[in-house]
Amino acid sequence: MKKDKVTIYDISKKLNISAATVSRALNNNPKISEKTRALVAKTATEMNYKQNRLAQALKNGRTNNVGVIVPYINRSFFSSVIRGIEEELTPQGYHIIICQSHEEAENEIEQLNALLNTQIDGIFMSVSKTTQNTDHIKKAMEEQTPVVFFDRKIDVEGVSSVVLDDFKAGFMATEHLIDQGCKKIAHLSGDINLEIYKNRYEGYKADLQKYDIEYKDELVINTSSKIESGMQAIDELWKLKDKPDAIFSAGDYAALGAIQELKQRGIKIPEEVCVVGFSNEPFTKYMELPITSVDQTPLMMGKIAAQVFLEQVKGDQALSIEKKVVLSPELFIRDSSSRKILNLSDGV
Amino acid sequence: MKKDKVTIYDISKKLNISAATVSRALNNNPKISEKTRALVAKTATEMNYKQNRLAQALKNGRTNNVGVIVPYINRSFFSSVIRGIEEELTPQGYHIIICQSHEEAENEIEQLNALLNTQIDGIFMSVSKTTQNTDHIKKAMEEQTPVVFFDRKIDVEGVSSVVLDDFKAGFMATEHLIDQGCKKIAHLSGDINLEIYKNRYEGYKADLQKYDIEYKDELVINTSSKIESGMQAIDELWKLKDKPDAIFSAGDYAALGAIQELKQRGIKIPEEVCVVGFSNEPFTKYMELPITSVDQTPLMMGKIAAQVFLEQVKGDQALSIEKKVVLSPELFIRDSSSRKILNLSDGV
Repeated sequence: MKKDKVTIYDISKKLNISAATVSRALNNNPKISEKTRALVAKTATEMNYKQNRLAQALKNGRTNNVGVIVPYINRSFFSSVIRGIEEELTPQGYHIIICQSHEEAENEIEQLNALLNTQIDGIFMSVSKTTQNTDHIKKAMEEQTPVVFFDRKIDVEGVSSVVLDDFKAGFMATEHLIDQGCKKIAHLSGDINLEIYKNRYEGYKADLQKYDIEYKDELVINTSSKIESGMQAIDELWKLKDKPDAIFSAGDYAALGAIQELKQRGIKIPEEVCVVGFSNEPFTKYMELPITSVDQTPLMMGKIAAQVFLEQVKGDQALSIEKKVVLSPELFIRDSSSRKILNLSDGV
Repeated sequence: MKKDKVTIYDISKKLNISAATVSRALNNNPKISEKTRALVAKTATEMNYKQNRLAQALKNGRTNNVGVIVPYINRSFFSSVIRGIEEELTPQGYHIIICQSHEEAENEIEQLNALLNTQIDGIFMSVSKTTQNTDHIKKAMEEQTPVVFFDRKIDVEGVSSVVLDDFKAGFMATEHLIDQGCKKIAHLSGDINLEIYKNRYEGYKADLQKYDIEYKDELVINTSSKIESGMQAIDELWKLKDKPDAIFSAGDYAALGAIQELKQRGIKIPEEVCVVGFSNEPFTKYMELPITSVDQTPLMMGKIAAQVFLEQVKGDQALSIEKKVVLSPELFIRDSSSRKILNLSDGV
């Protein structure tokens, strides 16, 4: 077994004085005589005792560490939000500790408890797809650890959040496709139990209504954020008698799968079918056929989330401030949906 | 200011007993009378004291948290290694905490200290490009916290490592290009002060020698792992009188930039120039022209790093075991360098 670390309890045993005295001596508490202080210091050195800032933190409740919990670190969106949080908090002396939930509520709870046990000063999180219960978040609040949600939130009183206007994003994406002349727009929706996907879907529906285009349930396919899922969606949609002339995907990976499957079938993009994705993953612009996508301004989202946290820890009323920030999406129009630009350059 | 958390010191003050007694009472130490235990428990509840597993950890030196420090979380290679570590350690009850160095030695030291201060049981790390000094790593060892390097290591006695055979990878990639009929192979090398890039470069040189192809310094360009850097490299190489007929890039992003710049110049890939990248980033296979790349088996690397750690913490001699594991690379051959396969399918 690994040898246990030397603790103040070991020193107190060796010197036959109380652990509290050892602790005070190590922290240069004036109540302790110089003689005792010197003896404790000497013994601590001999025993290879490493004083721990954490023990200090246990006393004053601060570690300057903050935790971030995301579903996955390998999605450009999440790593960019983390970057934004780091850019704001690192100059303030904070260290950023990252954990992944892998979209499992159980992992999220475990990770949150592990973070609480390391005495962090705050938690930023984007909840997992499977999170329903909010007890773990309430527990953090009870322990006076501020929580800030970003992108994906769940209703907990007193928790601030920084999210995207996903309804507007869905609306914009659909409007762009209508503007390209598309009339039968399919939607690859993601899990609409999650607020973000529900809002994108609602934006899509609202925009169809605005242009008097009939909403058809058969054109909405529930997909996961995987390439294969986008391929399967096309498979399903192309079984319909009346095939779509556009795809608005709530995720870039499903959009990529859709494009691959459409090409496989010899369908021309954007001439026959326009495609729009969501998240502005870097690969969308590297493609030979760059993919139009909604940018969620993740760097900004991280920075604002960090600012909300700083306000809370510096403010007088700590956790009583509940802030809800909603950011505006940006649509990056690229070749996968640019009939007009394409025609223009064709004409030149 | 944020209200400080209630500690055992607050409880001890209120009850006018020692902090050690409060601690023992909360931990159900049999030395403490049932009456005192009940009083402490009641007071702790009243004062909203949350017992902290960390305080426990301070006593026995275990938290079941391990830290991982990587240059960037948003590189598929690093996130896959982390996934491997998680897959091995999560079932053993460990929590994985991730930090990024952003390739800055200073950040790496800060993050390592922050992790040590949270009393983690071990550290996995891939050193930053700018790390020269090893004091921070020695400090971790002195605190009896095992360190395991993966992919990028630095020489510190007693530290285990799991790395790729980068020499072999460079050799294989070059041999593949020679096998495609290429004779003037350029190398986009990365920073050869870093062992991994130096070894890829040495493998490239050794393979040229094997096939009696003259090594030319002008064909080796130092690039960073950015698209722009790959574009600039082509710019430089195409100023040469004798232009290359193949590019072996030590990174996928530079390979992607090289491909974009070659296309821009109307150069056909792979007919005129073959391109091979390194890391097998997911985008390499999504491209319309999928990129041949060296796979570093990151999932395996993470799993083995985790196993090395478990051996150390479970073993009798803890830190005296120093293990050096070297993994074999795999070459994923795709269209960007497949003249032979291409000719074959042309003929069908």
